[in-house]
Amino acid sequence: MSFAQAMIQSHPQPVIGNDALAACIRACVDCAQACTACADACLGEQDPKMLVRCIRLDLDCADLCDATGRIVSRQTALEPQVVTAALQACATACRLCGDECELHAQHGMEHCRVCAEACRQCEQACNALQGQLAA
Amino acid sequence: MSFAQAMIQSHPQPVIGNDALAACIRACVDCAQACTACADACLGEQDPKMLVRCIRLDLDCADLCDATGRIVSRQTALEPQVVTAALQACATACRLCGDECELHAQHGMEHCRVCAEACRQCEQACNALQGQLAA
Amino acid sequence: MSFAQAMIQSHPQPVIGNDALAACIRACVDCAQACTACADACLGEQDPKMLVRCIRLDLDCADLCDATGRIVSRQTALEPQVVTAALQACATACRLCGDECELHAQHGMEHCRVCAEACRQCEQACNALQGQLAA
Amino acid sequence: MSFAQAMIQSHPQPVIGNDALAACIRACVDCAQACTACADACLGEQDPKMLVRCIRLDLDCADLCDATGRIVSRQTALEPQVVTAALQACATACRLCGDECELHAQHGMEHCRVCAEACRQCEQACNALQGQLAA
Repeated sequence: MSFAQAMIQSHPQPVIGNDALAACIRACVDCAQACTACADACLGEQDPKMLVRCIRLDLDCADLCDATGRIVSRQTALEPQVVTAALQACATACRLCGDECELHAQHGMEHCRVCAEACRQCEQACNALQGQLAA
Repeated sequence: MSFAQAMIQSHPQPVIGNDALAACIRACVDCAQACTACADACLGEQDPKMLVRCIRLDLDCADLCDATGRIVSRQTALEPQVVTAALQACATACRLCGDECELHAQHGMEHCRVCAEACRQCEQACNALQGQLAA
Repeated sequence: MSFAQAMIQSHPQPVIGNDALAACIRACVDCAQACTACADACLGEQDPKMLVRCIRLDLDCADLCDATGRIVSRQTALEPQVVTAALQACATACRLCGDECELHAQHGMEHCRVCAEACRQCEQACNALQGQLAA
Repeated sequence: MSFAQAMIQSHPQPVIGNDALAACIRACVDCAQACTACADACLGEQDPKMLVRCIRLDLDCADLCDATGRIVSRQTALEPQVVTAALQACATACRLCGDECELHAQHGMEHCRVCAEACRQCEQACNALQGQLAA
């Protein structure tokens, strides 16, 4: 069992969307890390100038995944409007960052391929949790 | 001249909405700090249990202001969809956190009064910058 | 293979301490999340006033784990003095937060038990990576 | 009066080092923003490859200033060992990032000149607050 799942199960109050929640926390945290690492790997390439848009989107996406990962880790006095707004912003950043990384993955950038995968997973997990909050 | 303004003026590329941008950066950074400090002050009160919703909203709002303040501090290869999504999420959190803090301000919580002011200012600055991005 | 490991292996430049590095990234990211969730679970308990010191340490530890997790995720133009300083600060926060959580774990707080475990793991991983940087 | 000062004065509990504290909060928050903006401005320059070490140090310094700015914004159940560890890590990052930015400032990079100034100010403010905590 992951730390995130163990924390959800030990919370003193009822939590929203158990499985979707654990998946979303994990995806946000993984994607924030992958985007931070991808920005750094892009910067370390022979010609970082070609990757300026990718670095920029990586940095923005990392910041939104980080904030959203923290917000969905909280269950106490949850305000659905704030959580939903964060999930929407995060899904948007993941979609655009994933699109950009995919372009470079097609030209052999392995770190962009991994990062695109993390972005896709996070976009889906944010949309899935949003669906549960709206239900 | 503030550091934020000096950084905007020394950027190698044209920047969006000069004055609205500087105001938004300042407001996000100030509101993130005020919300962090308000959560802490609430926690230090005689009866923090009465302030649980306020602490929660403060923490979420601080995280979104922090991420948004970083994102609007970047001008290179700006992707309007990501910036707009961040500004919307931030304005939503500021509105709800400001509403909650205002309730406690009316019962004499001075740190909530200050925090509500920072939230109102940030909500407006995010909306104003969004307007310029959409124009 | 985790995203963090995949990102390390696809980096364009030689990286420090492969296994210790992947372990440290994972531990920082997990501990930041566990501390954020533990602060929230403490806040949701019947009597949060008893847990004020735990909440405070959780919040500080989450912030240092988050910053350190980002810093160790970067390999390009690595400055050992900055990485070492971050690892030291993070290990200190993890030690003290782990000690505090352990006290509450002994009184049946399951989320504190899980969080203490994440803190211990992170403290060790930070110390291990510091050892490799010093070698 | 700044938001940070107003928050300090409205805290329900006695606070450490009033003036040094307000100065340190302000300096951390300003330096985090300046470093984020400087990394972005460097990335937007004609030849970002020359500035790779500067971008890397800016990103690390922003993360440590951000975490430290949050930690010193908290007064409740303050644990001096954690605060001191954060201040030390932040001062180290500011010193090295300031040194690097100064080199580029001498070659006409105005954003590096502004960022170096923010780093020097933050390094001093962290050292000053550490002195008060040790006293």
